[in-house]
Amino acid sequence: MITSLQNEKIKELMKLKQKKYRDEMNLFLVEGFHLVEEARKNGCIQTLVTTLDDDFAEDTLYVSESVMSKLAFTKSPQPIMAVCQKNNTSKILQDGTRYLLLDRVQDPGNVGTILRSALAFGYDQIIMSLDCVDLYNDKVIRATQGALFQMNVCIMDLKDAIECLKKQNVLVYGTCLLNAKSIDTYSNEKKMAFVMGNEGQGVSQNILDLCDQLVYIPIQSVESLNVGVAAAITMYHFRNE
Amino acid sequence: MITSLQNEKIKELMKLKQKKYRDEMNLFLVEGFHLVEEARKNGCIQTLVTTLDDDFAEDTLYVSESVMSKLAFTKSPQPIMAVCQKNNTSKILQDGTRYLLLDRVQDPGNVGTILRSALAFGYDQIIMSLDCVDLYNDKVIRATQGALFQMNVCIMDLKDAIECLKKQNVLVYGTCLLNAKSIDTYSNEKKMAFVMGNEGQGVSQNILDLCDQLVYIPIQSVESLNVGVAAAITMYHFRNE
Repeated sequence: MITSLQNEKIKELMKLKQKKYRDEMNLFLVEGFHLVEEARKNGCIQTLVTTLDDDFAEDTLYVSESVMSKLAFTKSPQPIMAVCQKNNTSKILQDGTRYLLLDRVQDPGNVGTILRSALAFGYDQIIMSLDCVDLYNDKVIRATQGALFQMNVCIMDLKDAIECLKKQNVLVYGTCLLNAKSIDTYSNEKKMAFVMGNEGQGVSQNILDLCDQLVYIPIQSVESLNVGVAAAITMYHFRNE
Repeated sequence: MITSLQNEKIKELMKLKQKKYRDEMNLFLVEGFHLVEEARKNGCIQTLVTTLDDDFAEDTLYVSESVMSKLAFTKSPQPIMAVCQKNNTSKILQDGTRYLLLDRVQDPGNVGTILRSALAFGYDQIIMSLDCVDLYNDKVIRATQGALFQMNVCIMDLKDAIECLKKQNVLVYGTCLLNAKSIDTYSNEKKMAFVMGNEGQGVSQNILDLCDQLVYIPIQSVESLNVGVAAAITMYHFRNE
């Protein structure tokens, strides 16, 4: 059992709390039974980390509770974590019919919830701009409730993504409040993509300029909806059935 | 200018970070220009707290930056806060047509987002069970984006609330996954109320037993939606126009 934070393996794992090292090593950490189980189903576990005395099918690092409490993201950690291989792509799915694009979405809870909703409404791919919050941030992962391991996520430049989608005859809808039409005025098309924007600023003008149509969700009294809510309503309205 | 945390007024304000004292004094704190402005429109500011050198219409406590940084909820606080009078009710609105009930919803971000969405979709009143997260928790308030000051919120026992709503001929819909029908199968009625449940456990069985109908949002692949998302889709689907 590893009891020291100075252990070389533990030092490597601690680095995975930083995006820089996650990118370098192409790995990330998840915490808790539910997420570890989802990672297992996805076949992306590299190493288990646990304070338990059990045998596991995967390579396992047995650690003390004090080591676990430093490695974990929560204050009262569950006794299990996993080091996982990143599973996102940088290519647009060829045969999808529903896509959701995220332009500089920054809040981890929003991105995680959006992944969970996308899976629920049958979306084929989420495309995140290069300057969104990191997909492998622990708060994003927690908010996905495991959807991270089931959802196809592509990280790439949104201009390139839109160009590629248009070549596949996907209609691209930008969400914004000005010069847009209510989502009620559009019906389901065979292939659709929706762009959701940054929490404060919405979708960038240069991205909106590339969209086929601009749409909004009809609201009253407030300036805007939370982006996680707006994405969910849009995906529900144009769900893939 | 107050520079000491030992100042009696500051000690009183610090207490407002705890629900117990917010309940006792019937006051709460908000932080930042946007929320202070919304509180001002609502006429509920008791005292302003600021590091600025300006004159304000309200009673104002001028404090040092170090005092402000202790009082504030965020790491990089804005230079203004307000002590506000609580504005919730404990009575069901008589003439409403759309109500949303929250049964033990615990996450501050979820409750705040739900208030914001409720305002956007023209809901008349939110009714929170007594064991929801505190409405005046700073994270709830931040997530409302100011909707706290515009939305009618009632805090009361949900059984009593449902009994009262039924007497007003409001149809009460419980949300759950078992023995329920898709929201698609229901159309808008004159008076409707929807009950959303706790993040892990959903709506309590004893509350579901009191509902007129049970409904779910049609989803695939995932066990459930985030409650903030589920509430928003339900309110969008049955919006008050």
